[in-house]
Amino acid sequence: MASQPKVTDTFWRRYMDVVRDEVIPYQWEALNDRVEGAAKSHAIENIRIAAGLAEGEFHGFVFQDSDVAKWLEAVAYSLATDPNPELEKTADELIDLLGNAQQEDGYLNTYFTVKEPNSRWTNLRDQHELYCAGHMIEAAVAYYEATGKRKLLDIMCRFADCIDSVFGEEDGKIKGYDGHQEIELALVKLYEVTGNEKYLNLSKFFIDERGKQPHFFDKESEVRGDTKPFWYFGSYKYSQSHLPVREQQEAVGHSVRAMYMYAAMADLAFKTGDDKLKTACKTLWDNVTNKQMYITAGIGSSEFGEAFSFDYDLPNDLCYTETCASIGLVFWAKRMLNLEVNSSYADVMERALYNGTISGMDLDGKKFFYVNPLEVWPEACSRHDKRHVKPVRQMWFNCACCPPNLARLIASIGHYIYTERNDEIFVNLYMGNEAIFDIKDKKVYMNQKTEYPWDGTVSMSVSPEESMKFTIALRIPGWCRNAQLKVNGEKVAIENTVNGYVYLKRTWNPDDQIELILEMPVDRIKAHPSVRENVGKTALQMGPIVYCLEEVDNSPNLPNIFLPKHARLETHFDNELLGGVVVIKAEANRLKESDWGSALYKAADEKYYPHTLTAVPYYAWCNREPGEMLVWMNEK
Amino acid sequence: MASQPKVTDTFWRRYMDVVRDEVIPYQWEALNDRVEGAAKSHAIENIRIAAGLAEGEFHGFVFQDSDVAKWLEAVAYSLATDPNPELEKTADELIDLLGNAQQEDGYLNTYFTVKEPNSRWTNLRDQHELYCAGHMIEAAVAYYEATGKRKLLDIMCRFADCIDSVFGEEDGKIKGYDGHQEIELALVKLYEVTGNEKYLNLSKFFIDERGKQPHFFDKESEVRGDTKPFWYFGSYKYSQSHLPVREQQEAVGHSVRAMYMYAAMADLAFKTGDDKLKTACKTLWDNVTNKQMYITAGIGSSEFGEAFSFDYDLPNDLCYTETCASIGLVFWAKRMLNLEVNSSYADVMERALYNGTISGMDLDGKKFFYVNPLEVWPEACSRHDKRHVKPVRQMWFNCACCPPNLARLIASIGHYIYTERNDEIFVNLYMGNEAIFDIKDKKVYMNQKTEYPWDGTVSMSVSPEESMKFTIALRIPGWCRNAQLKVNGEKVAIENTVNGYVYLKRTWNPDDQIELILEMPVDRIKAHPSVRENVGKTALQMGPIVYCLEEVDNSPNLPNIFLPKHARLETHFDNELLGGVVVIKAEANRLKESDWGSALYKAADEKYYPHTLTAVPYYAWCNREPGEMLVWMNEK
Repeated sequence: MASQPKVTDTFWRRYMDVVRDEVIPYQWEALNDRVEGAAKSHAIENIRIAAGLAEGEFHGFVFQDSDVAKWLEAVAYSLATDPNPELEKTADELIDLLGNAQQEDGYLNTYFTVKEPNSRWTNLRDQHELYCAGHMIEAAVAYYEATGKRKLLDIMCRFADCIDSVFGEEDGKIKGYDGHQEIELALVKLYEVTGNEKYLNLSKFFIDERGKQPHFFDKESEVRGDTKPFWYFGSYKYSQSHLPVREQQEAVGHSVRAMYMYAAMADLAFKTGDDKLKTACKTLWDNVTNKQMYITAGIGSSEFGEAFSFDYDLPNDLCYTETCASIGLVFWAKRMLNLEVNSSYADVMERALYNGTISGMDLDGKKFFYVNPLEVWPEACSRHDKRHVKPVRQMWFNCACCPPNLARLIASIGHYIYTERNDEIFVNLYMGNEAIFDIKDKKVYMNQKTEYPWDGTVSMSVSPEESMKFTIALRIPGWCRNAQLKVNGEKVAIENTVNGYVYLKRTWNPDDQIELILEMPVDRIKAHPSVRENVGKTALQMGPIVYCLEEVDNSPNLPNIFLPKHARLETHFDNELLGGVVVIKAEANRLKESDWGSALYKAADEKYYPHTLTAVPYYAWCNREPGEMLVWMNEK
Repeated sequence: MASQPKVTDTFWRRYMDVVRDEVIPYQWEALNDRVEGAAKSHAIENIRIAAGLAEGEFHGFVFQDSDVAKWLEAVAYSLATDPNPELEKTADELIDLLGNAQQEDGYLNTYFTVKEPNSRWTNLRDQHELYCAGHMIEAAVAYYEATGKRKLLDIMCRFADCIDSVFGEEDGKIKGYDGHQEIELALVKLYEVTGNEKYLNLSKFFIDERGKQPHFFDKESEVRGDTKPFWYFGSYKYSQSHLPVREQQEAVGHSVRAMYMYAAMADLAFKTGDDKLKTACKTLWDNVTNKQMYITAGIGSSEFGEAFSFDYDLPNDLCYTETCASIGLVFWAKRMLNLEVNSSYADVMERALYNGTISGMDLDGKKFFYVNPLEVWPEACSRHDKRHVKPVRQMWFNCACCPPNLARLIASIGHYIYTERNDEIFVNLYMGNEAIFDIKDKKVYMNQKTEYPWDGTVSMSVSPEESMKFTIALRIPGWCRNAQLKVNGEKVAIENTVNGYVYLKRTWNPDDQIELILEMPVDRIKAHPSVRENVGKTALQMGPIVYCLEEVDNSPNLPNIFLPKHARLETHFDNELLGGVVVIKAEANRLKESDWGSALYKAADEKYYPHTLTAVPYYAWCNREPGEMLVWMNEK
């Protein structure tokens, strides 16, 4: 692609504006400790201290630098679509500061520079040293691509060279890897932008080394004299280093780490043609998306370890479903599409983008969920085992990984629309955008218009510089059972999809028109019968949007609402509500409490009363009065 | 009552035999560290060390002595009904040993004597010092009543005198109380058996002092220099000392502590006529039994703090529902019946006795549940937040409070059958027994025969020494909607129950016969609509017995079984099964997994297949092959 598509979409442009106008400025204030009442970040101050420009102690998490990196990466994507000289100046100054904080040998990490200068590379398992490097590399690549400025890229190449001199198979080098995967995918990006194979090989080294026996983390612990069993059930499943990656068949452990690793594995399988790695990616994809994923594309069923638990264990109220994990799932899905175009990857990517990722932020971009539950009873959040579930979004987190991660995802949303392969353009996502492709050394202009996700009509104009033959493949979403397609007004059969895509291989002429109508009824979704939590329950979904019930619309005790099996599901677009959403209404029944009496248990028939159920998009919940929320509702 | 009724009941006699033949001997071995493979108790060794008869360190919990006390109490009850000279000799020797371990001033606690001799009474909040004393007092009272031997009673009177010299309102005395209530109810027993009002007053002092401000635990912590906030959400709700007891309206905190305290409050309200205390007892009773109790009479919805959570929060899979807590509920109920005869107390007592208490032990008396969940998916017990839920009973616990507590309850089960008040005999429970009452200085012999809980027919013969007028009041259980009553073959109307009891006030002659037939169909029980967990679900109950589904009878994935609303519930008594139980069968429907495919979510109608559901008594679950278990089943 010639450049990132220009997103003109109503739905996503609003989010991008929020990120540009609210999230990025707010987070900059937060990183600089200028937000009253919010937990101090100290992240910029740490860099100033490391750069010798301030005195003081390091404060914050060992991975505090990564917040700055993710912010910078979000800024880069935002500048690419919305130039802003003042913001760019702020970023340039920050990059100068990072340059000053870089050590003689290229090393750059404020925690170790300020707090433990003699302990570099001694605790890869816990200390996020390469993780932070990875995020800063991603920022450097994005900033270079957005602005053409090499300074941060050069800084990070120097650091990557430093890392390469320390890690590797050669004698005297550390045969290890980070406890929190991230640098692996970052090095692939660095390789892509620099063309330097050293970075690709270093990424491959980290992936190949992972999980080998004797275990690196054991050896490393022994050197440190640390004899405690690892806190996560004594198992390195936590960091997916329990087995060599090619032998892994089930998603385990910390879900964000898993996503970043699987993304890197997909990258490497694609770049190196490693079939075993590809097979592992597909096996793991199948496990995550068919056994361990919530309907919102939330992942991580367990708070302990922010982790996967086991197949079909998907409790709606105990889940972790971290915003960052769904974001990581998007990263992985995009790379799986490179490896093999298949709508099952794009379906999940779309599910995550419209549900489990953006639910992490309120509509104003001012408050954030770290945990995205599917069922909330605010009172129950006082339980010790549900204390991770916050009933309302929070201002800024102590561990503030999610807000900047979401900012960089939204700011780069255009990257996820298309996949290119030789002279094929795959349209994965439907959103208003203008894109320019290079095909056979010619420009191809594409302009997509749609009111997605509220309406399934998509118009695309295709304008190659001159008439030529190439393929545009359109994804028919998994949720869509009826679609109509026209090219220049002529109906095209869509029976013969290949892996969920309709291939339009033809000679395209300037100003050709594609019209795709995806029928978008409200569906009653059922979960696999092995998901014990959801037996007898249904979730409403329209197009890619998962719906939920909120107390503010339905009054308290949402589980006592029963949706009759054949109740008509009415929809209307409410422009005033939640930034403009389609609302679902249905005549439901509700358990009557008023004449039950005080007995806790009795042999009685339940009585019901009619209730007009109102469902709103899950991603937009908790933007009005706080209260209960429920995705999976009882059905009768 | 002249003495403890002689229990002849088929159901309970089997349990009493198990306690006598298995539990008591096994626990003695365990207390003496002679059980291979079990966690070392060290409890007897601690006493030997304290007595100067052995050298070594104290080992175990600070409350290790209480295991010995509870064992001794169980022995006493067992000896009362089943004399056993050898066991009595063992007990006498243990009592001699305890005498040797008692200090000059009467003090008796092996932890402090051996490990922290200079720290007596410095950390009442955490160290269970008075708690252990309480249990030993209960043992002493029971042993005296069973054997007539005063030695342990005298030992414990001396210790109680020592405690009385240390605690009280007078200057120089500690104005405090124990973090774990227990001594309060024990001192009432000591008062009852000795007639010494000092013990009643000391109990009242502890109850009255609790929760006063400035808070004793704060003052005590300050003296120790302990400035950490209390670990339980920083709240003394944990030990029900957050408010003066008369102001408490909701059950909070550690549920066993709560039960022991409420039991003592009921005792004191009864003995002292304190109306405010009585009102508090009734308010708390209403809260516990109508808002915070499982259908099994399990209590404690939260593992953290082994505690109550809040009204209607009754998760079936996350609950704590400790065996000891249900036992405590029985203690409290019995005392509420003294305070005010009302079948609502006896109903709960019965519910606890036939469900949530005895579920804590396998049928052989060899393995024990500490936590009694209402829904078990064994795989899910690997989750960190469900690790307290064991899918199978354990041999002996590190913290072994439940097994000896259950032993003492079962061995004294006869104590719970009747409540006496002047010339009134209240029959609370139906179980085969022979009892002798003193009424107007004459003996009244009662002989109850029944196959309860499997059949609701109860025959009672009443034989006063000579004809006289008095009242026998029979409880009509809350679960019974049709009962028939005959006295000497003549039908007696039972419309006019008073607080759930039919009062038979008449002249009773030798060998009068009462026949009570309690209709005992299988009921589909519903939970209050505010119990979100159980909406759309039903539990089966026959008489006092709550039923459950087990994997061994129904194959895996129990939540996918739907009991049709009008399915016939067939019962049959299976003499071979689980020691002889009534089994419930019904034609149910089950979600079909086989043709669902691999998709985790889809817009599809569920398919069902017929399944003959088998339900067995909850208390007897996990006595065959381990697996899933479910009380609240889906209904359609």
